[in-house]
Amino acid sequence: MPEYIEGYGKVHPFDGAFAHLGEMSGRAAAPVHSAHPGEPKLLSSIEAALEKVNLHDGMTVSFHHHLRNGDKVINLVMQAIAAKGIKDIHVASSGIFACHAPLVPLIEDGTITQISVSTFGAGPVAEAISAGKMKKPCILRTHGGRPRSIETGEMHIDVAFIAAPTCDDQGNMNANGPNACGCLSFSHADAKHADYVVAVTDNLVPYPCTPIEISEDYVDYVVKVDSIGDPNGIATGAMQVTTNPARLAIAQRAADFIDAAGYIKDGFSIQTGVGSISLAVASKVREKMIAENIKGSFGMGGITGYFVKMNHEGLLRTLFDVQCFDLDAIKDIATNPNHLIIDASQYASPGNKGCAVNQLDVMLLGGFEIDVDFNLNVNTGSNGVIMSSSGGNADTAAGSKLSIVVSDLMKKGGRCLVKDKVITVTTPGETVDALVTDKGIAINPRRQDLIDKVKDSGLPLVDIHDLYNMGQELGAVNEHPKFGDRIVGVVEYRDGTVTDVIRQVEE
Amino acid sequence: MPEYIEGYGKVHPFDGAFAHLGEMSGRAAAPVHSAHPGEPKLLSSIEAALEKVNLHDGMTVSFHHHLRNGDKVINLVMQAIAAKGIKDIHVASSGIFACHAPLVPLIEDGTITQISVSTFGAGPVAEAISAGKMKKPCILRTHGGRPRSIETGEMHIDVAFIAAPTCDDQGNMNANGPNACGCLSFSHADAKHADYVVAVTDNLVPYPCTPIEISEDYVDYVVKVDSIGDPNGIATGAMQVTTNPARLAIAQRAADFIDAAGYIKDGFSIQTGVGSISLAVASKVREKMIAENIKGSFGMGGITGYFVKMNHEGLLRTLFDVQCFDLDAIKDIATNPNHLIIDASQYASPGNKGCAVNQLDVMLLGGFEIDVDFNLNVNTGSNGVIMSSSGGNADTAAGSKLSIVVSDLMKKGGRCLVKDKVITVTTPGETVDALVTDKGIAINPRRQDLIDKVKDSGLPLVDIHDLYNMGQELGAVNEHPKFGDRIVGVVEYRDGTVTDVIRQVEE
Repeated sequence: MPEYIEGYGKVHPFDGAFAHLGEMSGRAAAPVHSAHPGEPKLLSSIEAALEKVNLHDGMTVSFHHHLRNGDKVINLVMQAIAAKGIKDIHVASSGIFACHAPLVPLIEDGTITQISVSTFGAGPVAEAISAGKMKKPCILRTHGGRPRSIETGEMHIDVAFIAAPTCDDQGNMNANGPNACGCLSFSHADAKHADYVVAVTDNLVPYPCTPIEISEDYVDYVVKVDSIGDPNGIATGAMQVTTNPARLAIAQRAADFIDAAGYIKDGFSIQTGVGSISLAVASKVREKMIAENIKGSFGMGGITGYFVKMNHEGLLRTLFDVQCFDLDAIKDIATNPNHLIIDASQYASPGNKGCAVNQLDVMLLGGFEIDVDFNLNVNTGSNGVIMSSSGGNADTAAGSKLSIVVSDLMKKGGRCLVKDKVITVTTPGETVDALVTDKGIAINPRRQDLIDKVKDSGLPLVDIHDLYNMGQELGAVNEHPKFGDRIVGVVEYRDGTVTDVIRQVEE
Repeated sequence: MPEYIEGYGKVHPFDGAFAHLGEMSGRAAAPVHSAHPGEPKLLSSIEAALEKVNLHDGMTVSFHHHLRNGDKVINLVMQAIAAKGIKDIHVASSGIFACHAPLVPLIEDGTITQISVSTFGAGPVAEAISAGKMKKPCILRTHGGRPRSIETGEMHIDVAFIAAPTCDDQGNMNANGPNACGCLSFSHADAKHADYVVAVTDNLVPYPCTPIEISEDYVDYVVKVDSIGDPNGIATGAMQVTTNPARLAIAQRAADFIDAAGYIKDGFSIQTGVGSISLAVASKVREKMIAENIKGSFGMGGITGYFVKMNHEGLLRTLFDVQCFDLDAIKDIATNPNHLIIDASQYASPGNKGCAVNQLDVMLLGGFEIDVDFNLNVNTGSNGVIMSSSGGNADTAAGSKLSIVVSDLMKKGGRCLVKDKVITVTTPGETVDALVTDKGIAINPRRQDLIDKVKDSGLPLVDIHDLYNMGQELGAVNEHPKFGDRIVGVVEYRDGTVTDVIRQVEE
C-alpha cells in the first residue's frame, strides 16, 4: 500500500473497522445563495444550468443512481459539459451502470478525469477504468462512506445534479411519477452540502409537489428535460426466489444457522443482498417466522417485492429503504406508511450520531470471493477487472450483529469461492462473521460466542481453511490476473481509510 | 437605535426587507461524535444527560414550543440545570408560554441570563423580562429568522433538548402519541446544528419509531421522563369562526378585497393567523371558492381544523404545517398524506435557497397596532410590556404577494388600531400591503398596482391617515407607556438586522 497516490492524495491505511468511531468530525459548511421572492428557478436546458452555476474545468459534479441501468441524466449532463469543452471533471455519482457507456469517450478525451462511486455495475465504464484509461484513480466507497465523505467535506461537491422523477418549479421533489424510482436516498447528502443543487426532471408538477423528499430550500435550479430515464432499465419485475434445489438447500442451512445462533426472534431485523440465494434465505426465514408466529422489527436495504410481501404479512413491521430494487418496491413505497425512505447517512454512515446498520441483527452479504481471513472481495472479478463497489457491504458487515456470506463453494467456471488471499479487500474479515456453503459452515474464529452457540446444533461446522482445501481438491481454477503497476482504483473503507488499491489490468 | 447593545453585540439596523437576500451565507458546521454499534443512547434522567453533554455555565440550550402552553420539558430541564448550580444559561426556545412561569425565579437568580424566541405567549416570563429582571436582552426573532440564525452559526446552540411525543431508543422521533403535538418543525435546525442533541420523551417505542420526523443520525442521547406535557395546554378544541355579525362583515369585506385584487383563483395559496377574524375571512374565501369551483394549491402556517376541513373538501390541495394549533390538526397530520410537515427553514428562512412563504399569495397578518407607515407591532401591548414575538408575521409579510391586516378600527379599552407611530416595529411597513377595517380599506401607497386593481370595485378605499384621524375623532385612548433607558429586548428582522429595541417598563 503506497503512502501517497497521485490523483488521490495521502493514503490512510485501514487500521481496524472500529478504530475511528467515536471521533469528533466536523461538518462541511455549504455556502448558500439565499432566494428572492418571485425569482424563478426553472431553467430551459441543462446548458442554461451550466451557465448559472458557472461550471468550469476541475469541478466535481454529483449524481445519484436510483434510476439504475435506465438513468439518462448522467449522460445528458456530462455530454452537455463536454460540448462546452470543459475538462478535468470529477464525476461523483453514487453509482455508475452499463447504460453510462457514453461516458467512456469523455474519459478518453479528458472531460472526465476521475470517478467516485459507492456502487458500480459491471460494464464499459468499469472496464475502461481497469484498462487504465482514466487520468486519476477511481474512488470506490461504501454507501455509508460516501455521505460521510460529503458531510465532512472530504469530498466537496461543486454542483449536484439530482434526477427528480417528480418536481415542482421550486425544487420540491419526490421519486414517484412516470419514471418513478421510489426514493432518492443517495442524493440527500449532496443536496445538503453541494455548493449548487440542480434538480433535473421530466415530470414538472404544480407547486407544491407532494410528498416532498428533498425540499426547495436546498435547490438552486430546476431543469425540465424530455426524459430522465428508461423505465425498462430503472426497475425489473419482482425478483424471484431461486427454484434450484441445491441452492434452496444452502438457503435452508443458512436459515437454520441464523436460528441456531439465536437471531430469529421477536423484534429482530434483517437485510439481504440481491444475490439469488439471499432471497431464498429470506424465504426460509419467513417460513420459520410464520410457523412460530415471530414478528420482526425491520427489513432494510435495497428493498425488493419479497420484503414488501413480508411487511404486508406483518412479519417485518417496518421497511427501511435506501433504494428500490424492483417494481413492487417502487409501487409500495409511494403509499405504504411503514415503508420508509431513509437517506444514505442514516442508513450507513459511520460519521454520524448513529446509523441504522448498527441496529441490524442479520445481514446476508454478497461477494465475489472470500479468503481464509474472511476478507471479502466485492470489487474485482476473477480477471481483475472492476465489477462493483461495496454498496452497503462493508457498512452492514460492521454494523450488524451477524453478517454471513451464503454461497455454493464452487462457482461458475470451476472457481472456488474461498481463496488464500482475495484479489481486492473490500470488506475486512474482522467484520464478516460466517460463511455458509454447501460444503459446511465456517465461523470466523473472532466470534467464539457464535461458535459456542451453534456447536451442538448439528450443523456442519468446518474451518475456513478446510473449505479452501476442499476447493483445491475439487480442482479449483486459481486465476492470477495480470496487473500492471498503475493504480486505477482506491478502495476506501467506510471511515475513509484505504483497504486496498486496484491496479491496471494488463492485456 | 444604539450601535452596540451590552449582552447582544453590534447592531445592524434594518435597512430594507429585501436588502440582504441573494447574499451568500455560510452554514454552521456542527461537530459530531460518531456512534459505535451497540453503544446505548438511552439515559435514565435529565441529570444523566446534563453530565453526558458536560452542561456548564454560559451555555446555550434550545427547545421547541410545539407543546405550547402544556410544555413541561423546558421547566424540567432548566430546573435540573439550576439544581446543579449552573449559571448564565441562554434559553433559545422557539417559544415561551405562560406555563413557563417557573423560569422566572431562575431568571432572578442568574441561572438564566438570556432568552431568545420566535414566538412568545404573554405571561410571567415576558413580564419579568419587561420589568428588567433578566441580565441580557431577550432576542425576539421571526420563525424564519430563528433557523437562519442557527444555520449560519449566528446563534450557536450547545445542547438542543427536543421534546419528542414518540421516540425510540436511538432518537428516531415523531410528534404523534399520547401527548401528540403534530409536528416538530421548529426543532429541525436545532437537531442539525447543535453540538449535542438530547431527545426527551414520555413515549418510548421499539426501534424503529414510525414515521420518523427527526432521525437517529442527529440524536446523541434519549431520556425517558414521566410526562413531556399536559394535553390540556398542548392543544385546544377546533378553533371556531366568529359569530359576531360586525366582525363577519369585516371578514366579508376582506374576502371581497382579496377577490377584487385578483388573488382568489385556481392554484392560489393562503395563510391565516389565529386571530378570531382570520378564520372568518377564511370562511368567506371558502364560500367563494365553493361557489365558483376554485381549487387552491396550499394553505400554510399554524394549521387549524378549519384548514383541515378545506383540505378534505378539496379546496386546498396541500397543507404546509409548521405547528398544529388545535386537536383536529394534530389528528389529521398523523394520517393525511396531503398534510405535510415542513420545517421552519423551508417555511420561512430568508437565508436558504427558497422558502415557502415566497410562494404564498395571501397572508392575513395579526398585530397589536399599525402605524401610518404600515409598520406593525406584534411585540408589545399598549402598556409597553412584551406580549409576543413575530412568529411568522414578518416572514409571510415579506414573502407573500398580498399581506393584509383585518381588524376593527377601534379596539378594547377605546384604543385605535392605527397609530402615528407603533410602540415597537416588528414587521416593517414596506412589507404590509393593506389594512381592512370596518371604517374602510387602506392600501399601502407602495402598492400602486393594488390600488389600480381595486379602485373601481366599489370597496371603501381610504388613506391610512384618514383611519388614524377617524380614531382620534372617535376619542381614541392614546397610551404612552413609560419606558426606562435599559434595553430588555432586541427585535430582529428575519435577516438578523434590528427593526427596534424594547426598553424596560417603568412601574
